[in-house]
Amino acid sequence: MLHIHKLLSFFAEDVPAGDITTLALVEDTIVSACIEARQEMTLAGVEECAWLFKHFGVAVTVEAEDGENISAGEKILSLAGSVHAILSLERTILNLLGRMSGIATATAAAQRLASVVNDHVKVAGTRKTAPGLRYFDKRAVRLGGGEPHRDSLSNAFLIKDTHRAIMPVADAIRRAKEYSGYHKVECEVETLPDAIAAAEAGADIIMFDNMTPSAVRLAIAALTARGLRDRLVLEISGGITAETIHQWAGADVDIISMGSLTHSVQCADVSLEIEQSP
Amino acid sequence: MLHIHKLLSFFAEDVPAGDITTLALVEDTIVSACIEARQEMTLAGVEECAWLFKHFGVAVTVEAEDGENISAGEKILSLAGSVHAILSLERTILNLLGRMSGIATATAAAQRLASVVNDHVKVAGTRKTAPGLRYFDKRAVRLGGGEPHRDSLSNAFLIKDTHRAIMPVADAIRRAKEYSGYHKVECEVETLPDAIAAAEAGADIIMFDNMTPSAVRLAIAALTARGLRDRLVLEISGGITAETIHQWAGADVDIISMGSLTHSVQCADVSLEIEQSP
Amino acid sequence: MLHIHKLLSFFAEDVPAGDITTLALVEDTIVSACIEARQEMTLAGVEECAWLFKHFGVAVTVEAEDGENISAGEKILSLAGSVHAILSLERTILNLLGRMSGIATATAAAQRLASVVNDHVKVAGTRKTAPGLRYFDKRAVRLGGGEPHRDSLSNAFLIKDTHRAIMPVADAIRRAKEYSGYHKVECEVETLPDAIAAAEAGADIIMFDNMTPSAVRLAIAALTARGLRDRLVLEISGGITAETIHQWAGADVDIISMGSLTHSVQCADVSLEIEQSP
Amino acid sequence: MLHIHKLLSFFAEDVPAGDITTLALVEDTIVSACIEARQEMTLAGVEECAWLFKHFGVAVTVEAEDGENISAGEKILSLAGSVHAILSLERTILNLLGRMSGIATATAAAQRLASVVNDHVKVAGTRKTAPGLRYFDKRAVRLGGGEPHRDSLSNAFLIKDTHRAIMPVADAIRRAKEYSGYHKVECEVETLPDAIAAAEAGADIIMFDNMTPSAVRLAIAALTARGLRDRLVLEISGGITAETIHQWAGADVDIISMGSLTHSVQCADVSLEIEQSP
Amino acid sequence: MLHIHKLLSFFAEDVPAGDITTLALVEDTIVSACIEARQEMTLAGVEECAWLFKHFGVAVTVEAEDGENISAGEKILSLAGSVHAILSLERTILNLLGRMSGIATATAAAQRLASVVNDHVKVAGTRKTAPGLRYFDKRAVRLGGGEPHRDSLSNAFLIKDTHRAIMPVADAIRRAKEYSGYHKVECEVETLPDAIAAAEAGADIIMFDNMTPSAVRLAIAALTARGLRDRLVLEISGGITAETIHQWAGADVDIISMGSLTHSVQCADVSLEIEQSP
Amino acid sequence: MLHIHKLLSFFAEDVPAGDITTLALVEDTIVSACIEARQEMTLAGVEECAWLFKHFGVAVTVEAEDGENISAGEKILSLAGSVHAILSLERTILNLLGRMSGIATATAAAQRLASVVNDHVKVAGTRKTAPGLRYFDKRAVRLGGGEPHRDSLSNAFLIKDTHRAIMPVADAIRRAKEYSGYHKVECEVETLPDAIAAAEAGADIIMFDNMTPSAVRLAIAALTARGLRDRLVLEISGGITAETIHQWAGADVDIISMGSLTHSVQCADVSLEIEQSP
Repeated sequence: MLHIHKLLSFFAEDVPAGDITTLALVEDTIVSACIEARQEMTLAGVEECAWLFKHFGVAVTVEAEDGENISAGEKILSLAGSVHAILSLERTILNLLGRMSGIATATAAAQRLASVVNDHVKVAGTRKTAPGLRYFDKRAVRLGGGEPHRDSLSNAFLIKDTHRAIMPVADAIRRAKEYSGYHKVECEVETLPDAIAAAEAGADIIMFDNMTPSAVRLAIAALTARGLRDRLVLEISGGITAETIHQWAGADVDIISMGSLTHSVQCADVSLEIEQSP
Repeated sequence: MLHIHKLLSFFAEDVPAGDITTLALVEDTIVSACIEARQEMTLAGVEECAWLFKHFGVAVTVEAEDGENISAGEKILSLAGSVHAILSLERTILNLLGRMSGIATATAAAQRLASVVNDHVKVAGTRKTAPGLRYFDKRAVRLGGGEPHRDSLSNAFLIKDTHRAIMPVADAIRRAKEYSGYHKVECEVETLPDAIAAAEAGADIIMFDNMTPSAVRLAIAALTARGLRDRLVLEISGGITAETIHQWAGADVDIISMGSLTHSVQCADVSLEIEQSP
Repeated sequence: MLHIHKLLSFFAEDVPAGDITTLALVEDTIVSACIEARQEMTLAGVEECAWLFKHFGVAVTVEAEDGENISAGEKILSLAGSVHAILSLERTILNLLGRMSGIATATAAAQRLASVVNDHVKVAGTRKTAPGLRYFDKRAVRLGGGEPHRDSLSNAFLIKDTHRAIMPVADAIRRAKEYSGYHKVECEVETLPDAIAAAEAGADIIMFDNMTPSAVRLAIAALTARGLRDRLVLEISGGITAETIHQWAGADVDIISMGSLTHSVQCADVSLEIEQSP
Repeated sequence: MLHIHKLLSFFAEDVPAGDITTLALVEDTIVSACIEARQEMTLAGVEECAWLFKHFGVAVTVEAEDGENISAGEKILSLAGSVHAILSLERTILNLLGRMSGIATATAAAQRLASVVNDHVKVAGTRKTAPGLRYFDKRAVRLGGGEPHRDSLSNAFLIKDTHRAIMPVADAIRRAKEYSGYHKVECEVETLPDAIAAAEAGADIIMFDNMTPSAVRLAIAALTARGLRDRLVLEISGGITAETIHQWAGADVDIISMGSLTHSVQCADVSLEIEQSP
Repeated sequence: MLHIHKLLSFFAEDVPAGDITTLALVEDTIVSACIEARQEMTLAGVEECAWLFKHFGVAVTVEAEDGENISAGEKILSLAGSVHAILSLERTILNLLGRMSGIATATAAAQRLASVVNDHVKVAGTRKTAPGLRYFDKRAVRLGGGEPHRDSLSNAFLIKDTHRAIMPVADAIRRAKEYSGYHKVECEVETLPDAIAAAEAGADIIMFDNMTPSAVRLAIAALTARGLRDRLVLEISGGITAETIHQWAGADVDIISMGSLTHSVQCADVSLEIEQSP
Repeated sequence: MLHIHKLLSFFAEDVPAGDITTLALVEDTIVSACIEARQEMTLAGVEECAWLFKHFGVAVTVEAEDGENISAGEKILSLAGSVHAILSLERTILNLLGRMSGIATATAAAQRLASVVNDHVKVAGTRKTAPGLRYFDKRAVRLGGGEPHRDSLSNAFLIKDTHRAIMPVADAIRRAKEYSGYHKVECEVETLPDAIAAAEAGADIIMFDNMTPSAVRLAIAALTARGLRDRLVLEISGGITAETIHQWAGADVDIISMGSLTHSVQCADVSLEIEQSP
């Protein structure tokens, strides 16, 4: 389990000095309880939540795994342990599981829409994650069947308009490759000539940014004609939503990246039920 | 400035080992730049973002303050400093400012809808915040004109169905007050008799949970008739959205709490522009 | 167990690079040992100390629980484990248990003195705790039978002379209540008119600060006459000690807060005995 | 300034989410203020408090330095800055300054009592400090004119009854010296023969533990007669208080260590005054 | 400046409770001092050391920059400030600067040896860095003119013998590319057929592991004949030292990676001189 | 186990977001594996590595203990557990075990060379350790049979040329002893008169710095003649290497300190073998 320290800090944030309502009202007995889905969803965060419960001495049975699609009413975790521990952890768990499953669910939905028109395209996340939650947000994208994309500014090159304003695309790519041969070089382009220049200069990934679907198709045709398409990962980006994704997926692209998957999350509805009252 | 440590960790998350694209391509010169709004929004996170830029040596002028409503195209921060510092911070800043302003904007919008039909009601957040972001999410609710509600399980009593299943409402309230006189006692109720019992037992706040607007009105009338209404804070909660808020606000309540304000955030659209190219 | 991270840091502070005396002189064998009281005391910190021993692999039996009153010579924890672990932890454990039990013991003693003359009054702590030990100090006050009072500046309103110098009491209370309905509003007063103004403006708690016992009695009579007393928590504060507490407790107050409970702690005398020499 | 991280955590403990009373009631203006003594005291913690104020943008003039003796009413720090910053820091500062100055004052008082009868003896602290505050407590002992004694179990050897139960004193000292030549070897003794054995085996420091003043005098005479006294540091320990210290100081010892200096602190009375109301 | 927290922890490790020699003997005055080289070296860590001095209030002039080659006796940093601050920082600074410059110097030396026989080959580091120092060790490799190679297990794929034991090379590469399009795929090979299989399957980087120079030449010739060489990064690895590097560099490879650059560092000799005695 | 937090951070540094190669290619099954030596070495870090494996759920049998001398091919740890856990930990473990065993091996080798000519001399480390690794580096010196020397600037006095430039040696020693009786006083000398002055003033340790072997012999003879030698620890320091150590060890010294033991480490060659392929 990675990022244990963060999981513990999520709990400490919600319980800095005890769950006073539970301490005042509830005798600490052993109960059974469960976490269940209140809507259809693709699960993410199950492993993290199971770890947190176990860390505080609650026995856990995983009823549905990370990445699984489940329906409203299905159980995710069965729990047995101190009612104080379970009630104190409730909101921390639901917030994490709800956010991560929300991201996974939106990713899976977008992926299904894209797959209808293009059987090899993959929906991808971006670096537009909630501050401090990069690892969990990216992991949820993967569990939803998507591609997490680069983890950080240290993780891959992405040549954007700011950089292209300073030097020609080919120079930028050459300098990036000289800087490091161990990180992929992605180049954002807005025009056909730039796409060709980037491909010829050896970019690993070309991102068509804010181009129309037809402009993208033309660009891909041109790359294909020049024998450059095969060794490239082709990505479309720029304000693509569940509503418009079908327009883009039809083009022969590999990746459709969507900031909204992580920057504007619809939390999945999960709840904790005490099955055997204390 | 509170939670400096977290602000720095947000940056470290995005730049663990340098912004390799900038390091490879851009000479480090002094530039001017700005953060600006690309949609109408209520601002939150300006103070935090200004602090982060200054911490890394970038001079900052605050053009629009936290809590202010601004239009698309308006400047939020003017910047002057190292292009390396500014580009490395870009995504960290936009993610934080976008999330916090998204929360503030949604809060302000809900507050406006509620105020149309009830001039003293306040929209409130909940503990359904992103893990690790409690302080920032709650602060954004306040900057949007809302009530942040309790900070944590240690911060106020909230007697819920789990607790009411064990003992009568009046007993629960008495025990909470005995446990501490320095934390407010809120009691969630689903029926008129429970509302009256809670008020008579000295609850500070009554939360009408998942009751219909008309049931809420009846309950408030009953509390008023008994002379109990004035010293109470009355809160409605349970799946209320921007679409349905007007149905509830018409009742004589003080607080409408909405989990969606922080658990399902629509990120505000902000961008960084380099004004004077390096 | 909350604040595990702090418990571990207490140990690291005393053993940054090994207990060199033990490493040089003592072969690491399994021994039995115990923690025992060397004076009469009310226990606090037992749970924390048991956790620390267990964390380092020492088996623990709790012989006397947190909150219990015990006599000199009684056992608190029975231990079995590595003599190296036990000796390395000795001072860390005794410092924590001694401080927390010292606070609990002083609280219980003050509470007994107050209860003689007033069967519903409660002794309370303040924010005058040792830096970094707020949680443990407050927990010890509770285990001693006292009221911990507000946890922090973020936790309840306390309107003091500084604030009253700027605006009338009633305005201050109104603004606090507008600021948040989820935190109690306490108002410090020094005169009868201020007490009445605070009560009428809806303060939750009134603190009589540095008033004579007779002035306090007069104020309470006046509040009672106006029908305001019942819904208020009434607190006395200001240099009250074990010696003078009986003068105050006789008034019909709810809370007597004493900074000395945590700012000037008399450590309880506890010791570790190796029962079966290694 | 060492331990900056801890200073910041002391503040965060008291202000996790803003000083809500100040935020609700006080407009943020620039004021002047001061920290002053309300009793005679020896100062400690001034440097730490000045650092904290400066860190939050408050201008500070140090009016009385660490280690200085001042009277009731004298100023310690003059302040100018944001009233929000000053009020938010007030309790954190007073708690730290009060504890550290309390320790320094008690140390200085004990030192004065000891010096009356022995002009070269020094009062010393022990490892019986508040958990997490070792550095600050020890620093306060030094500022009060005392000897802080060893910092931790890793810092010097101290051969106690537990160790002497396993092997003869001379063997224990020899093994300690073999283990490391870079840490002093202190040996606790309860009898004259052990004192001589320890001195002959090359102990650096001999601690007379729970011996009567006359037994200590005899032991010192015996060491002197054998020509061993000069190269030794001689320490007395064991329940010595301000009341009994004169009985011990008369013997020709170098150090009188007193656990009470740090385990049972009488907080010094310091206060913050806003001089020019906001 | 990245990893500030680590820089501060390096200092805290050496000065947990003050530099007692300096505190006991040296009056704190303002002095001038410098850091200088006592051997020829390529500098790394200058920026970090300058930051640390400045953080503690010492004025710094950088006399020689990171990456620069300097001779014995040349100044690196000129300092002016508190003699206490400078002496307390001395060892922390020299340890960091010495290690990083040692790595940079060894890297530059190896690079020079390789460049003699191959003008486009680059010497590279590995993940064999000192625990906790990955960022600083890799940065030093870069400042010495080398390629840092992948930062972590999360940063690029590296298919090794363990993986090849489970499935054919081509399958492994295909699965890695499916797993993520945003991380380079490197494949370690020990035979010509594996090299061809890896190249044909689309590996980005081929690492010839423990192959003889002639076997490597044959493999490269075969890749070139098949038109596969150009789009590949070719790396040699496995026990290559400064003594043997010329045997390998002659082959048409791009990268020679050497674990010894960071796992077995020869510290560069740097010293601090107080120029104007306090 | 001390410094657990650092052990975990070493792993997090290498695996910030998962071992992507293993995740993409290897099914997670239970395997057996071992860590073994690929050269003769003295072991250090075994306890730390065993702890790390166990923390991540891998069963560990320690086949060779810390401090033991083993040959190439001998097993150090036998492992059984998740292949994902083992592969993810591999590099972290090997880096730590390799560095610590490298230090222990070099220490043991130097100690053997010294012992040939002087049966009571001990080889010692210095504060020239890798930043952040002081505890582990010093522990490795001890496991190699050496003396770790002082841990930090807070741990013992070391009077160096900088201090001697300000005041006579005797004054410096007197002031150090007045400052604290609980820390050893070491004095670096370069001449015979200084050595005698230091010894007469009561230094605990004299370090002959950069003196020739014959000058050291003369100084020791002079100290012996004056009856001062016996109570002193005598240390030689200054550029001593494995090649030159025999020249120094012949003198009647107690300690030979060598910065190279920790500042220029030759990593020991250890490897992980999966014995039963997943």
